[in-house]
Amino acid sequence: MSFIEVDPDSSFPIENLPYGVFSTNSEPKHRIGVAIGKFILDLSKISQLFQGKLMYNVADDVFQEPTLNKFLALGHHYWHEARQTLIQLLSKDCATLRDNQELRKKAFVLQTEALMHLPANIGDYTDFYSSIEHATNVGSMFRDPSKPLLPNWRYIPVGYHGRASSVVVSGTPIRRPNGQTRPSDDQPPMFGPCRGMDFELEMAYLIGGPENKLGEPIPIETAHERIFGMCLMNDWSARDIQKWEYVPLGPFLGKNLGTTISPWVVTIEALEQFKVANVSQDPKPFPYLVHDDPFNFDIHLTVSIKPNGEEPSVVSNSNFRYLYWTLKQQLAHHSITGCNIRPGDLLATGTISGPTPGSYGSMLELAWKGTKPVQLKNGQTRKYLEDGDTVIMDGYCQGNGYRIGFGKCEGLLTPALNLSK
Amino acid sequence: MSFIEVDPDSSFPIENLPYGVFSTNSEPKHRIGVAIGKFILDLSKISQLFQGKLMYNVADDVFQEPTLNKFLALGHHYWHEARQTLIQLLSKDCATLRDNQELRKKAFVLQTEALMHLPANIGDYTDFYSSIEHATNVGSMFRDPSKPLLPNWRYIPVGYHGRASSVVVSGTPIRRPNGQTRPSDDQPPMFGPCRGMDFELEMAYLIGGPENKLGEPIPIETAHERIFGMCLMNDWSARDIQKWEYVPLGPFLGKNLGTTISPWVVTIEALEQFKVANVSQDPKPFPYLVHDDPFNFDIHLTVSIKPNGEEPSVVSNSNFRYLYWTLKQQLAHHSITGCNIRPGDLLATGTISGPTPGSYGSMLELAWKGTKPVQLKNGQTRKYLEDGDTVIMDGYCQGNGYRIGFGKCEGLLTPALNLSK
Repeated sequence: MSFIEVDPDSSFPIENLPYGVFSTNSEPKHRIGVAIGKFILDLSKISQLFQGKLMYNVADDVFQEPTLNKFLALGHHYWHEARQTLIQLLSKDCATLRDNQELRKKAFVLQTEALMHLPANIGDYTDFYSSIEHATNVGSMFRDPSKPLLPNWRYIPVGYHGRASSVVVSGTPIRRPNGQTRPSDDQPPMFGPCRGMDFELEMAYLIGGPENKLGEPIPIETAHERIFGMCLMNDWSARDIQKWEYVPLGPFLGKNLGTTISPWVVTIEALEQFKVANVSQDPKPFPYLVHDDPFNFDIHLTVSIKPNGEEPSVVSNSNFRYLYWTLKQQLAHHSITGCNIRPGDLLATGTISGPTPGSYGSMLELAWKGTKPVQLKNGQTRKYLEDGDTVIMDGYCQGNGYRIGFGKCEGLLTPALNLSK
Repeated sequence: MSFIEVDPDSSFPIENLPYGVFSTNSEPKHRIGVAIGKFILDLSKISQLFQGKLMYNVADDVFQEPTLNKFLALGHHYWHEARQTLIQLLSKDCATLRDNQELRKKAFVLQTEALMHLPANIGDYTDFYSSIEHATNVGSMFRDPSKPLLPNWRYIPVGYHGRASSVVVSGTPIRRPNGQTRPSDDQPPMFGPCRGMDFELEMAYLIGGPENKLGEPIPIETAHERIFGMCLMNDWSARDIQKWEYVPLGPFLGKNLGTTISPWVVTIEALEQFKVANVSQDPKPFPYLVHDDPFNFDIHLTVSIKPNGEEPSVVSNSNFRYLYWTLKQQLAHHSITGCNIRPGDLLATGTISGPTPGSYGSMLELAWKGTKPVQLKNGQTRKYLEDGDTVIMDGYCQGNGYRIGFGKCEGLLTPALNLSK
């Protein structure tokens, strides 16, 4: 229990303590904080309180930074000690912070008064495709429903390099893009606003620890040491643009119009008690991908669409645990050819779809390529997103009497630029 | 003419003045320099000499940086003025530097005494596929020789997001990767060292100027203002790994094992007089891709393979001018959906193959999928690269009595790690 009051339905009890970067009107400098109840604990104001044998020497440095990168680079022993210190400092029984009114006044900021920023300077961003339900649905719609998975899918955690510059924090509006599409194979392509704007429900994870050198893979046995924590991600997708461009080099402009992440990074340590068994894999993966310890998590996920000025409607209920490939497998695979992965790099799971239609993680699947429009509360339906829609993703782990929440990942879709000339 | 002696066959006459980042044993700090003859002019030592009305205020700042990023961000008016200042300072008739022996001693470093580094902190790296000969060759080998180009190729400057962390500077050894391959469709995949290590002859260009905001495309009319300069690139490729992984999301591990660039960035301004007509395009591109001014360059390119301890053999003679899509078209396309492009981002052309077999830009094409092994001087042949091979790329523009050279882009292929267990 913390001396900071935390509502029972809060996303941020003392069991959570996610890291983020924020600023305020009165202090526009970007700084690192930890969410607790309705507050943010500003670590730049209490860095002197990290007295553990590892953080003691470095807290003043890393917690004065405008991003998490330096803290991420320290590695998992440091993260563990920092968390222990924070749990102690915030606990009911610890007087250090509790009874220092002057410091409390400086160090606690109401979340409603803070502006959140990207938690890290993201060097590279990689997106996987690790939900077997999602890959099966897409394969059924666009290829062969009797053989929807491509031959490599069960051998390889398929992934691709995404665009880092266009990763933005929750709340950033996303503009409907213009681009080339080819609605009919019999007709030449067209240029104009995208007509298939979609979301993709994903989770992303931030990499930390010392960088592996180019040419030196990360062994699956130690891959978990490089994974700091997770957030929610909306991998906005322009389906019609993607369809015309993606053969043979993969998605490009259909994805780099904006990728939204939630601002709070929930540490793997906070998620530890929500581990569940890995999904069983057939065939057995190559040895470099094999691990027997569970590295799957029971995280409830929802997506809502909120039309302009109206109530949000939940359109998807999914769960992280449906993923076929674990984060450790993704990371080991990513580096098996020697790719160096740096602190601050962001990796993502790909769309997380569950086994039932109500758990699909994209409009493409929910409305099944436009054949089953999705019903909203206001009586409207959607095949894809419309201008003015806000997409809201939410996620939490249900503990015994508390919730580890991820906060919201949301973004408003705004109309396309008029580029006709 | 410069007061610094420049051999007639030097890559770095006063007409060139490429930018790079270097350090020396006696001064390990990374700093910005400009190549002239056999020397590097250390801009951190002469930043006070930039007295033009733009650079005057910022030279001390940007030329004390360990990368070009801040200089790149300033934009083309600043780059032009800086170049004018450098041409004047280095000219025979200007006494400022010529007659200041003390400053000359500090400011000029022999290239043989310098260690070169990446010229910029590369935020994102994107690779295009803009050579029609290369795309045709690949399509002929792997798809339909009668219809080798995919339907989108003549409409879209096809490209994909690459890996920024694994871009390394010339001289960095590249390790043959391990990975999954599937040599036969009738057999399950295998794991082990790559057996199809290849180079790709490319050129890369560094982006500068103020970042366009997310959602705001770069118009083709001003795209040239964002392009600072070019270097050579070897996009090392593991063909067998790439073949098994790349459907449907594109090349991933087959490319992120290392990408080598030459250290000197030759400015577009230095290349201005080597502009040649653009390749004619049919069908006419969409308006957002149309520009009538020439933005093609006559740059001679060669690739040599140097087996361990032996003489190099030239295996390819190509030219930048064969590219179908211009750099301006690539950049306008990249941002048409609103992708923000930041100073320090690196874009590349894709393999530059010419119309004749001797001008192909990869082993895949030169040895035509292994059916026509490439002959080396030492009597050996190659289908793909062997351990101990050094790949050397070279490029220059031939002026009247001088050459604008790019310096070398080279890398040694070292044996794979033994990962059997």
